[in-house]
Amino acid sequence: MRRLTELATPCLLLERAKLARNLEIMAGAVRRHGVALRPHMKTAKSAAVARLATAGQAGGITVSTLAEAEYFAREGFRDILYAVGIVPAKLDRVAALRRAGVDLSVVTDDPDTAAAISSHAGATGAEHRVLVEVDCGEHRGGIAAESDALVAVGRALGPLCAGVMTHAGHSYACRSIAEVEVVAEAERRTAVTAAEWLRGIGLATPTVSVGSTPTALHARSLAGVTETRPGVYMFQDLFQVQIGSGTPENMAVTVLASVIHRRLGENRVVIDAGGMALSKDRSTASAPRDYGFGLVMDMHGRQSFGDAVVERANQEHGVVTAPTPLPFDRLEVGTLVRVAPNHVCMTAAAYDRYHVLDGGDVVIDVWDRVSGW
Amino acid sequence: MRRLTELATPCLLLERAKLARNLEIMAGAVRRHGVALRPHMKTAKSAAVARLATAGQAGGITVSTLAEAEYFAREGFRDILYAVGIVPAKLDRVAALRRAGVDLSVVTDDPDTAAAISSHAGATGAEHRVLVEVDCGEHRGGIAAESDALVAVGRALGPLCAGVMTHAGHSYACRSIAEVEVVAEAERRTAVTAAEWLRGIGLATPTVSVGSTPTALHARSLAGVTETRPGVYMFQDLFQVQIGSGTPENMAVTVLASVIHRRLGENRVVIDAGGMALSKDRSTASAPRDYGFGLVMDMHGRQSFGDAVVERANQEHGVVTAPTPLPFDRLEVGTLVRVAPNHVCMTAAAYDRYHVLDGGDVVIDVWDRVSGW
Repeated sequence: MRRLTELATPCLLLERAKLARNLEIMAGAVRRHGVALRPHMKTAKSAAVARLATAGQAGGITVSTLAEAEYFAREGFRDILYAVGIVPAKLDRVAALRRAGVDLSVVTDDPDTAAAISSHAGATGAEHRVLVEVDCGEHRGGIAAESDALVAVGRALGPLCAGVMTHAGHSYACRSIAEVEVVAEAERRTAVTAAEWLRGIGLATPTVSVGSTPTALHARSLAGVTETRPGVYMFQDLFQVQIGSGTPENMAVTVLASVIHRRLGENRVVIDAGGMALSKDRSTASAPRDYGFGLVMDMHGRQSFGDAVVERANQEHGVVTAPTPLPFDRLEVGTLVRVAPNHVCMTAAAYDRYHVLDGGDVVIDVWDRVSGW
Repeated sequence: MRRLTELATPCLLLERAKLARNLEIMAGAVRRHGVALRPHMKTAKSAAVARLATAGQAGGITVSTLAEAEYFAREGFRDILYAVGIVPAKLDRVAALRRAGVDLSVVTDDPDTAAAISSHAGATGAEHRVLVEVDCGEHRGGIAAESDALVAVGRALGPLCAGVMTHAGHSYACRSIAEVEVVAEAERRTAVTAAEWLRGIGLATPTVSVGSTPTALHARSLAGVTETRPGVYMFQDLFQVQIGSGTPENMAVTVLASVIHRRLGENRVVIDAGGMALSKDRSTASAPRDYGFGLVMDMHGRQSFGDAVVERANQEHGVVTAPTPLPFDRLEVGTLVRVAPNHVCMTAAAYDRYHVLDGGDVVIDVWDRVSGW
């Protein structure tokens, strides 16, 4: 069992109790509606976390890459939704997972791709399972719920059409729970309407899938929906806390870093966590409070350096400052600090493992994570 | 031998001829001054690239992490400068590499750390080789060249002091070659002055190390300097091109991506390269021309979609638009495109390999790269 002080910096820390609390809150929020929770593993990318997140649930998960699908399949997961628009060139990898006994669903909003999936199924025997992506206002992927295009995609898929999915990513632009409720209702209504249209042309459409962390937590109704797919709720971050998806105490993932320079005359220190270790994500620039590239706390995760933030992030250098004088006597070169990330999905991506803590400074476990495509 | 059309997207492409040309230009620029070129491998992180970049040079390289130092040591490199401020906790890994025959130099600007390095050397027998970091105007790492602090660090290191180093990272803020020349002269003068101060207290100070891509290319004099450490010149990117470090034709690294959605009414397509595949770096936001999260070209690397850029980058979605109508007939779902990155150091970090091309669409080689710390 190693202690924090024995870890090479920068590295990723995960507080097990905070993770557990976040999982419990989301499970409770979703349980109210009687729909399935299909956690999105794009944030954690870890089988150990997925096992906790699916405990007491139906067991299905969501992924953002085929590399994740293959990793979770190796780890025993059998019900996986790959929630990023498929292209025909990726169907062989999908079919290989299906042949291996994984019920892997894919997503499209494109009639030609739908036809290509049907052809691929015909040529290879792969019984693809496809959700039609509809747009509930995010304007990223997805076609309109009540549209000829929807009907065209449904018809091209025929029996491979297993339902509809949408994602209210624009819930991240909300700055109050009342605003999230409005977006959540649009997300629900869009998915349900699309499902009704597909049923109207004779497609069974069993799956009606929605979800983002804000809308899954705050939806007033999920009537007609069958599952929701939040992800970042597991860890929380400075951005999610500010849009009402969590509390600062529940941020479960931080980066452990070391002070490498002190600049007393400038009220700055430099740490060995820069853009590589924290990511260049600046989500909080559009939030009520801007944390630069992250909030700097002491090695125990306490905010004992005032409002110190990483104001600048070069490749391996994070320049830290604060509106009040930094306590340089407690920030010697070599001092360990923890940085809470703006956007944990991006920050965690730089690492291949979590050092798991349980409130103290002892590493109780090491959990791997998958990366790449 | 695979073709581009057989690669899983997103993935990283490297044009060998463009790399070779960039290496030749920098070698020529440095040769003028009769100083050593110690290429910074933080961008490429690849032994294959390092072998090309050191061909005809003294053989030394620069790295930004100990993981890089260990990787390049395994690959046979024997003269390595770890150019990020050291902390005492990392000295055991440094000593292990030195014991294995690697002449690994480290950097500090802190008297207490210098004393800790001397103690570590005394206790373990590791003959550490240390450069004192001085600040030539970037205000990140480094102390003033003519300062009591410099003398204190030098005295604490004693015979372990092998020289001085500085980095003109603020050359990236220059918007003309004339401005770069001024920064390059400050970089040179700072390093040479610091070396003279250390020699004044009886330290031999053989190494006088400077370097960034802009200053290495455009310095008018490197008198008194012994080596320079540019890195990003090997690949170039949209930012470097705009500050005069390269030309658009020489950008050697791009991301291959697939169109996954078309949004005809909005003049947008979505590709499977988002924040993970491109990074969230927004360097060009402060350049004359802002490319969003990257410039979108056709699969052959030609700019045939007008000024199409990735305007929005979610985790696995890049939303592409252009000021002129996109040619949707050539942007079907599944179409391959290439994205030139804003800041190639950050973009390349998401990948574990380069698919090497030589002008055509055949992958002539696959080169690995190292990540983590």
